[in-house]
Formats: sequence, C-alpha cells, structure tokens
Amino acid sequence: MRIVVLAGGFGGSRFVSGVRDAVGPDDEITVVANTADDIWLFGLRVSPDLDTIMYTLGDGIDAERGWGRTDETWNAKEELATYGEPQAWFGLGDRDLATHVVRTARLREGLTLTEATAELCRRWQPGVTLLPMTDAQVETHVATTVDGQDQVIHFQEYWIKHHAGVPVRGIELQGIEDAGPTPEVLAALESADVILAAPSNPIVSIGPIVSVPGMRDALSDAKAPVVGVSPIIGGAALRGMADQLLDALGIEISATGVARYHGDLLDGWLVDTEDADQVDAIEAAGITARAVPLYMRDAETSRQLALDAIALATELHS
Amino acid sequence: MRIVVLAGGFGGSRFVSGVRDAVGPDDEITVVANTADDIWLFGLRVSPDLDTIMYTLGDGIDAERGWGRTDETWNAKEELATYGEPQAWFGLGDRDLATHVVRTARLREGLTLTEATAELCRRWQPGVTLLPMTDAQVETHVATTVDGQDQVIHFQEYWIKHHAGVPVRGIELQGIEDAGPTPEVLAALESADVILAAPSNPIVSIGPIVSVPGMRDALSDAKAPVVGVSPIIGGAALRGMADQLLDALGIEISATGVARYHGDLLDGWLVDTEDADQVDAIEAAGITARAVPLYMRDAETSRQLALDAIALATELHS
Repeated sequence: MRIVVLAGGFGGSRFVSGVRDAVGPDDEITVVANTADDIWLFGLRVSPDLDTIMYTLGDGIDAERGWGRTDETWNAKEELATYGEPQAWFGLGDRDLATHVVRTARLREGLTLTEATAELCRRWQPGVTLLPMTDAQVETHVATTVDGQDQVIHFQEYWIKHHAGVPVRGIELQGIEDAGPTPEVLAALESADVILAAPSNPIVSIGPIVSVPGMRDALSDAKAPVVGVSPIIGGAALRGMADQLLDALGIEISATGVARYHGDLLDGWLVDTEDADQVDAIEAAGITARAVPLYMRDAETSRQLALDAIALATELHS
Repeated sequence: MRIVVLAGGFGGSRFVSGVRDAVGPDDEITVVANTADDIWLFGLRVSPDLDTIMYTLGDGIDAERGWGRTDETWNAKEELATYGEPQAWFGLGDRDLATHVVRTARLREGLTLTEATAELCRRWQPGVTLLPMTDAQVETHVATTVDGQDQVIHFQEYWIKHHAGVPVRGIELQGIEDAGPTPEVLAALESADVILAAPSNPIVSIGPIVSVPGMRDALSDAKAPVVGVSPIIGGAALRGMADQLLDALGIEISATGVARYHGDLLDGWLVDTEDADQVDAIEAAGITARAVPLYMRDAETSRQLALDAIALATELHS
C-alpha cells in the first residue's frame, strides 16, 4: 500500500509515527510536509516542520519539549543574543543548528529543498520519504498589532516571540502564488492508495500545503481518497494556536468548522468520540465522517488512530 | 601616537595585547590582520586570525588552547560529523560558531569583511581598531602529498586536519592577485607613527599581508618605520609550523633568515637575546637590529617586548 500523509510539525509527526507503526514493511509512506513555517534566521534556512518530523521519526527529538534535539545545549543562541542579533528569540539549539547549517549549505550549492531534505534524512532514516510541499520559498506571515503598531510578522515571530499573544488580523502565505508542488509530490499523490491529512493546524500547516497552486487539483485527480483527522476536539485545539487562528479568521472552532473550511479537499473526516454528535452535520457537507478516539497519548493510540484513518480511506476507495 | 601592527593569530594577538598594555589612553592602535587563513566551512566564512585577536583582546579566548572561546561546547561540530560533513575536522565550537554565523550573515547582506569585523568588535571591545588586510577573498593553500597523491589543500586542512604532518611542496596565496589593501588599511598606514610586525608566521601570516598588491608600496611610502619581531628564537619557531614552512621553502630557520626573507619591508628587527650574535649579519642586510627578550610568557613580558619594539621604531623615526 502507498500512503501519503499531509503533515505539519508536532501533531503531524506523532500521526506519521502512528502510520509507520500501523503498516507493514512492504507499505510505502510519503510525508508531504508544510514548509510555510520555514524562516531565514541569521542567514540560515530553518524548516521547523520538516525537522520535527525528521527528528521524531529518527528518534532525535526532545520528546518532552516536542521540538528540537535531545541532549541539546544553547550556547550559540546565547552568543547570537549577546551579539545583538534581533532574531535570537528563536529556539535554536547547538545540535539543531548543525541541521540548519547543512541544509543551508546544500541549498546554496544549488540543491532543492527536496534534495537537501533527502540528504539530511540519510542520517536520520525516518522510515518514510519526507518531502517538502514545494521547493519554492513560501512563508506564513501574520498581520497583527504589536505595541499599538500594525505589523505583518513571520508566523514564527508571532508564535515563538509573541507566544501567540498578539491579535491576528489576517494570514498571508507570502510567495505562494509562485510556488508549485514538486515532481516528487505530484508522483507520490498520483500513485497513492491512501492520502491522509494529519491532525495539524488547518490554517498554518495543512492550509499552506493545499494552497500551493496545483496541489488541490493533484489531490482531486488522485485515485486515492483524502481522509483527514480533526485537530479540534470538543471546541479546542489540543496544542498550538489553531483555535486563536480559526477564531481570528471567523471559522467555527469545531471538528465541523474545520471540515467545512477544508471543504471539497476531503473525502473522509475523523472526529473524536466526544464530537460524535457532529458526524451528521459533516456528512451533510458531503464528507464521510467517523467518530473515533483522536487523542494520541502514546505510540499505541497514535497507531490506532492511523489504522482508523486508513480503514476509512480503504472503505471510501472500494 | 598612532601604532599599526601587522599580525597573525596566536603570536599576533599576544603581541597586540602587549602593545595595548604598553601605550597610553590617547594612543591609537590599528591591527592589520592576516585573512589568508580564512576558509569557507559548511557555507560559513571563518576568519581564524581575526577571531583569535578579537577573542584575546576581548577576554573571550580560551587562553590554554590559544584559540576559540571560553566555556566552549562542541555539539554542533559533533552533529556536522554525524551528518558526514567532510570538513568536520575543523575545531568549531558552539559559541565560536555564532561568530561565524553573524559574520557570514553580514557578508551575505553585502557588508565588507572590514564592516562585518567592526560589527563583531562592537561586542568584544578589543581596544584596538581591528582591520582585515583586505576585503577580497585570499586563501593560503599548500601544495602537498597526501597518501601518495599530490594535492593542493587549504592551509587549515594542512594545519588542523593533517597537523602539519604532510610534506610541503609549495605555498599558494589563492586570490592574492585580485586583492588590494582596504581604504581603512591604507589610511592607517599613511597616518601611522609606528608600524610593527608581530612575531607571527613569516610565510602564512605576515607573508600574505605584505603580498597584497599595493601593501609593500604603502608600507614603504608610510612615514613610519617598520619594525618587526622575529618569530624564530634559536633556530626554532616557538609555536606553530613556521619552521616546517621555512624549511620547505628553503629559507634559513633563524632570526636572520626571516629578516632576509622580509627584506626591504623592514627598517628594524628585534631578535632574542639568545640570537644576539646575529645582529651584525642582519645589520649587514641594511636592517637595524636589537637583541631583547622575545618570549611572551605573560602580560608583562608581552608589554616589555612591545615597549622595546616601539622604542626601536621611535629611534629609527627620529
């Protein structure tokens, strides 16, 4: 079986781990990762979602923090702050820094982000093919107001520097109009038996992936059904700032609200058992819905969620 | 008094510290540093001699090692090696790495190396104006034989990876023909009252500085005399690989041999008291020589050596 998973960072990496645990050795998993979180920091290209997935699947993640490396130190970051670098708010560990140095060196040598990611993965052996959604530079920016000043800031600055504590007036996917899916992504979608959307942030993780021009068409044209997992359980995001962003954009903070937001992208949608009463409303929108336990507490619950998603896709495929 | 010092890394930084301790608050010190040790590592521009001088004068050097930062960790380097980066032989600490990241970011933004160095020095406050010899890219390469293969390798690879343990067939200053002294260097030389050459490696530290096209003319045209300090005491270099390089290039390993090698660059030359018997031979070559203690054991002996050099320059100037 060929499985493609659309994924952001934290929830995406847990879900992909579950998929990897759910399938057999002959199944092939391709992850199409959000790269709109990517940012230039101190002349280095940082790809938070690619790295979170790579570190998680390669057993290098700091599991408690949910991002960055195990056994990390923070000396370079401390020095960058002492040098007065304005971006030293970013959580840049010394081990993590090496990843960005290697990625940036490969990009400057002319490799695509897809190729640079493949090179990094040769070390981490994630057990999946990890693909950026595009090789073009796309960056999510947030229109906000900081200290009374209207500003458009990089999503990382909104999330890490301001802890999502400033108002959201809008979201811009800078560079998206010039982006396209890579040949590797298009080939994976075309040959997929199952396409899954991880329970990642609908606005800044799954949103940018499906906003790449040509991506929605490729998803519709694919023979595989697209089954998503709700990132909202009982009216709140489990982690992250999905609820703030949904609220700011006037989208209902519910499994149904997110399903409607994704719209015809989805053939199937998994909601939590707590939200079983929303199944009818979602199906009324033309999306087959099932209520199953969505909490990924550990490897086993993540694996079971992946099995449930694959089961719904298989059902829709037949 | 305006003092310009031509300097390499280790010996240069000790000597410049001595000069700083020797002069008064109204005296101005400009250091013209060798940048031919500079190297691109993992897409970062590393300037070993500039950094050694900056860290030493800014009290951030690991004094025991003689290079790199205090309280250093080595996690990024370990990761780079694990990624299979071929240049991971370089001694790249996590704190030190931040310096290279800032420098490279500034260079990529279009600043000159002179401007980037000034920015780094705003933090370190070395108490001198630290200038690269040129803003052009000049790199010392060593023609050698490794594992039976004739190769031309970067000086850092010869020195750090091979511990100067491979034969030297020649030295190339790659890029030197397109380099020129910066306006800042020319202005400093023109207005100098005293020009000193630190007891740095004659081939790969002082050599590249005075090989920058136009530099020897600027030194000759300067009203200040040029007084150098021998890096050789009693037939051997105190530290580093000066003796191997001199030997490979057929230059006598002695205070006299180095003075003759520098030739008409020098107006005065300090040799160690141990080499007092060479004073006549050096003076026969038209260079005023004095025998004084050259060992820089501590701050006081470094300061005394600087005072001796300044005294000879003052004598020659009058």
